[in-house]
Amino acid sequence: MRMYDLIYTKKLGGALSAEQIAFWVAGAADGSIPDEQSASLLMAICWRGMDTAETLALTLAMRDSGKRLDLSSVPGLKVDKHSTGGVGDKTTLILGPIVAACGVPCPMFSGRGLGHTGGTVDKFAAIPGLKVELSEAEFLRSLAETGFANSAQTADIAPADKKLYALRDITATVESIPLITASIMSKKLAGGADALVLDVKCGPTAFMKTLEDATTLAQSMVNVGTAHGMQIRALITRMDAPLGWAIGNALEVMESVEILRGEHGDSELAQMSFRLAAEMLIMGGAANTLPEAQTKVQTVIRDGSALATLRRFVALNGGDAGALDDFSRLPQPGQVVEVRAAQDGYITAIDGRALGILAMDLGAGRRDRMDILDLGVGIRVLARMGQKVGKGDLLFQVLAKANHKVVPDLYLATMDIEATQPHTKPWLLASIGC
Amino acid sequence: MRMYDLIYTKKLGGALSAEQIAFWVAGAADGSIPDEQSASLLMAICWRGMDTAETLALTLAMRDSGKRLDLSSVPGLKVDKHSTGGVGDKTTLILGPIVAACGVPCPMFSGRGLGHTGGTVDKFAAIPGLKVELSEAEFLRSLAETGFANSAQTADIAPADKKLYALRDITATVESIPLITASIMSKKLAGGADALVLDVKCGPTAFMKTLEDATTLAQSMVNVGTAHGMQIRALITRMDAPLGWAIGNALEVMESVEILRGEHGDSELAQMSFRLAAEMLIMGGAANTLPEAQTKVQTVIRDGSALATLRRFVALNGGDAGALDDFSRLPQPGQVVEVRAAQDGYITAIDGRALGILAMDLGAGRRDRMDILDLGVGIRVLARMGQKVGKGDLLFQVLAKANHKVVPDLYLATMDIEATQPHTKPWLLASIGC
Repeated sequence: MRMYDLIYTKKLGGALSAEQIAFWVAGAADGSIPDEQSASLLMAICWRGMDTAETLALTLAMRDSGKRLDLSSVPGLKVDKHSTGGVGDKTTLILGPIVAACGVPCPMFSGRGLGHTGGTVDKFAAIPGLKVELSEAEFLRSLAETGFANSAQTADIAPADKKLYALRDITATVESIPLITASIMSKKLAGGADALVLDVKCGPTAFMKTLEDATTLAQSMVNVGTAHGMQIRALITRMDAPLGWAIGNALEVMESVEILRGEHGDSELAQMSFRLAAEMLIMGGAANTLPEAQTKVQTVIRDGSALATLRRFVALNGGDAGALDDFSRLPQPGQVVEVRAAQDGYITAIDGRALGILAMDLGAGRRDRMDILDLGVGIRVLARMGQKVGKGDLLFQVLAKANHKVVPDLYLATMDIEATQPHTKPWLLASIGC
Repeated sequence: MRMYDLIYTKKLGGALSAEQIAFWVAGAADGSIPDEQSASLLMAICWRGMDTAETLALTLAMRDSGKRLDLSSVPGLKVDKHSTGGVGDKTTLILGPIVAACGVPCPMFSGRGLGHTGGTVDKFAAIPGLKVELSEAEFLRSLAETGFANSAQTADIAPADKKLYALRDITATVESIPLITASIMSKKLAGGADALVLDVKCGPTAFMKTLEDATTLAQSMVNVGTAHGMQIRALITRMDAPLGWAIGNALEVMESVEILRGEHGDSELAQMSFRLAAEMLIMGGAANTLPEAQTKVQTVIRDGSALATLRRFVALNGGDAGALDDFSRLPQPGQVVEVRAAQDGYITAIDGRALGILAMDLGAGRRDRMDILDLGVGIRVLARMGQKVGKGDLLFQVLAKANHKVVPDLYLATMDIEATQPHTKPWLLASIGC
């Protein structure tokens, strides 16, 4: 088999066989195929696309480049969730304990943040002592004993994806539906869950800008999962303003705990977390209908068992569970700066991406992969879309390092305040699969 | 400037600026831009194309990566020719001396053969002693003293093209109109001629399979030349059977000399060579109309001055000019095997590509760049398209090394012999420019 022939076939719009794709992925991972040939094929895939069979073959080849987790020692259908990433998205911290508390095991691998979006691993890392990189044995123990396990993706999961992603990153080939699909799904399949709920973000500040693009990506992932015999369902959700009031790692732990306590139950973050959890319950066999699943979600919030599950998960993995009840034990900022409205009006837009970048600048996110985070800094977004505000009202609390120079105008610029009240848009745009 | 942005722009179908293209070419040549980024951009160019301004910018950037020849010491408009390559194409050996004999300086750089097509440099190398790689001083002296100069392309001409071509070769990005255009035109512009005639081959065995593709390539080259202020014209010529009876280096010298002697004047090879020469004379200002130019061509054939020019060129550059009159002084084969018709009928097809590969197997061409040629071997194709042949008639003489096992059936398989006479097709399909 010659790599040249694969590139040439794809360049002309042909389909690659599973054998050819496996040859490429193995060669890209072990270095026997030069990067320039992989780069050329990656761009040809951006051009010509891949059908479901090819995308599945790419997914499986990348999965098989590394370790696969065997979760069969834990009884029941294991259900995972994946989000394409948004500013302030802490749904994993909320729905994981909820789903586990409802009796459905919830094994999750998360990433570290890069750029304007935070990473779930970093949020968990804000809980003092909590081990965020679990061994296989620790992961299985956490899943068996608490129903919930979350760990940073280890290097031995889908290393070919890691290698190809680094190449895509410098060759402008990240944006490709089949490549994105295979990258996500290879890691999800390696993680060993039986079912998967996807949260595909859509909006001007998300990776997928239009409903059409988001639907295409969601459908592609659902196709691959289904072709592999996995239960899979995707929600397409709107992404413009940050999700919830908290941006920054310790702050996002606080907001998650508040929701698990039953506070802010009508917020978009709570509704989205509850809906995703309900979908997971149906897939895990704990409910037959959405209303039934939603009732179960409310029950474990009300009776405190969801929060108790989070406490058990934290304690089992070396974390300070008491910090969930006493937020002063979480990392704290060096200073808090208030930013107040300069005019009256209705909030008609909040630029999540811009706030994500400001939070990154505070030290809550990484500009470069090697940056060290300050887990106590972040932004409290204290006004919601559509809310009426008056001049001088508190819009943001900026939690910064002591020596950080906070420029209020940069924060004010992320919010549009206009005279007429905007229409509120629904957060759930579409659902696909199952 | 970041290479990533160039790739991303082209991926989305945007145009690159001349500054961006110069940045890329310089970086690709000096290694500061990694090959995987160049490979990705090359495939994006195959996908999205380049407009004339971009293609000219790429051409000039590649030209400027190396040395440019200054021909101004030789008076008059200098006219060059380029062919996209065909089996048995020895027109340079014929038209160069003709054009020079008519008073138009003809400076040419040629390539060595690879694969099934031979190279003009190898054909000249069959003349004993002839130096085929001339220094700049030798090239200029030859042009000044004989009106004709031919040399192998030296490494210091457009080295960025050499580097990018090697990358294209392994990344399946050779076939792209702007990339082919820039590769050819960068070397032609570096060669310093004022005007250029292009012979773009078209046919199932040529690089351009359809008249549409050949026209697109010809138009692209004419656009770039014209945008640069160069006189340029392209003929699109049919390529299926070999051009002329000779395939193989010494054999092709013999056939060229025969045509310069005035033999085979009505053959397709002679007609094509004379027409290309006539176009060059018009561009060089030696004639105003095609009939006038064609008359001049016939004159220098008839009075022997074209052949005399070739003799002078050979003698000046160390070659045995006497070998042009006594072919026994050219390299000879170890054995000659005759291949005769197995049936009666009309010759309806001759597969030039297959014969080119057979000639390569004999040692007349290179499978790999480092192969050493046998300049005396080759194939005499002794029956023409449309000719009526009888069983037992001589179709081929195979000139082989003494120990080469000639398999006649392989030669017979390259010719279709059928009961009905085929329509003869014109060799000139279209002309473009000026």
